[in-house]
This record gives sequence, structure tokens and C-alpha cells, in this order.
Amino acid sequence: MTQGLLLVDHGSRRASANALLDEVAERVRAKLGESALVEPAHMELAEPTLAQAFARLVERGATEVVVVPYFLSPGRHATEDVPRLAREAAAAFPDTPHRVAPPLGPHDLLDQLVLVRFRE
Amino acid sequence: MTQGLLLVDHGSRRASANALLDEVAERVRAKLGESALVEPAHMELAEPTLAQAFARLVERGATEVVVVPYFLSPGRHATEDVPRLAREAAAAFPDTPHRVAPPLGPHDLLDQLVLVRFRE
Repeated sequence: MTQGLLLVDHGSRRASANALLDEVAERVRAKLGESALVEPAHMELAEPTLAQAFARLVERGATEVVVVPYFLSPGRHATEDVPRLAREAAAAFPDTPHRVAPPLGPHDLLDQLVLVRFRE
Repeated sequence: MTQGLLLVDHGSRRASANALLDEVAERVRAKLGESALVEPAHMELAEPTLAQAFARLVERGATEVVVVPYFLSPGRHATEDVPRLAREAAAAFPDTPHRVAPPLGPHDLLDQLVLVRFRE
């Protein structure tokens, strides 16, 4: 089994904002090493779309896809829009199961990060 | 010296979204104990505003205010709008210095959190 991590943020009209997610994906890829494939995607406003990233993961050999919403809270985007787009993307690959992880927050690591920013 | 932590997010028309920041502020408050005062605020769309939270911190005894932008990236909101609102709020309290911290991301703790969500 080869897992694919599909990291999806909101997406922006500003290329610099979208590039930040590429950098997160690159760092996550470095942490994971050979243990999983990683592709970034944007929910809207920019490519790669979630469907493009899903297809790319399957092309690269992923046999299971985990979609991680890069959002701070379980709002509508993370809990409805991203899961819907993931279902639509997955429909083209019936042999590749997928699941959608919770968004980043709330989480103790975020609370810790607030304190890091406060103290530095 | 009593530090005040002013935690500011974007703000939403949905009360449930705004309430999430109150919960983060509450947990951060619990971690800080007596060492600092904490007030949440919303950049727009909801109260308390940044100015209201700044005034509240001074009323409660803060002699210095650190504004922490609860944003994932150093986009326009975190690097321009929040600092401008902070300057405007601080103008009413010339004896209370303030600084604006970097936004949450990019940071290694966020990269770690992506892996936590991927693996759980």
C-alpha cells in the first residue's frame, strides 16, 4: 500500500499565497521521506485543483489517498466543500479509497503555537 | 509589567466560527495562568473588535500588548490590516506599548500538525 497525502488549502488569486502551500507540502514531503506521496491542491481560485492533485497521486502510485484540509477550523470549507470535492475527484478512481482528515484546528499544537508567537 | 495577549482572527458572520476563537483564547489563558492577560478579537465582521479588546486589556491592567494574528500565513490581513488596526487601537493608549507578532504560519509546528492529521 502506498499512501498519498493531498494537502488542500482555500486557494488565492495571489500566486505568492498559493506558493506558501507548495512550501508546506515540500517540508512535509521531506519529513515523510519515502513513506508517502504528497501533493498540494487549492479548493478554489487556483490550480492544482483537488481533482488534479488526486489524479496525480494515483498516477504516481498511491493506492490510498488521505485529504488533509489546511484550514484552522472545522468550518463549511473543511467539513463540506473539501469532502464533496474529494468525493467527486475519487469517483474517477474507484479502486483508490480515500478519506478526509479533520482540519488543523482546533488542536493543542495550535494553542502552543500561539504561545510561541506571543513569547518570541 | 503585565503583558496582554490580544489574539485576533479574521472574524465571521457565523457565531459558531467566532466562538472557536473564544475557545482557543480560553485554552491559551489556562496555559498562561497568571503570567499574562488574554483577550480575543476579530479583524472584521464581528465583535469584539481589535480596538475593543485592546481597551479591555488596558482596563484589566495590561502595561504592554502583544497582538498575535491567528492566521495561517503572512498575507495582507496578518501583515498589513492587523498591524494598522493595532496602531489605530494603540493611539488611544500612548502609555501602553504594543507589538504585532508574526502570524501562526509558516512554522514547524504546523508542518507537524499536518502529519498528525494525516496519520490519525
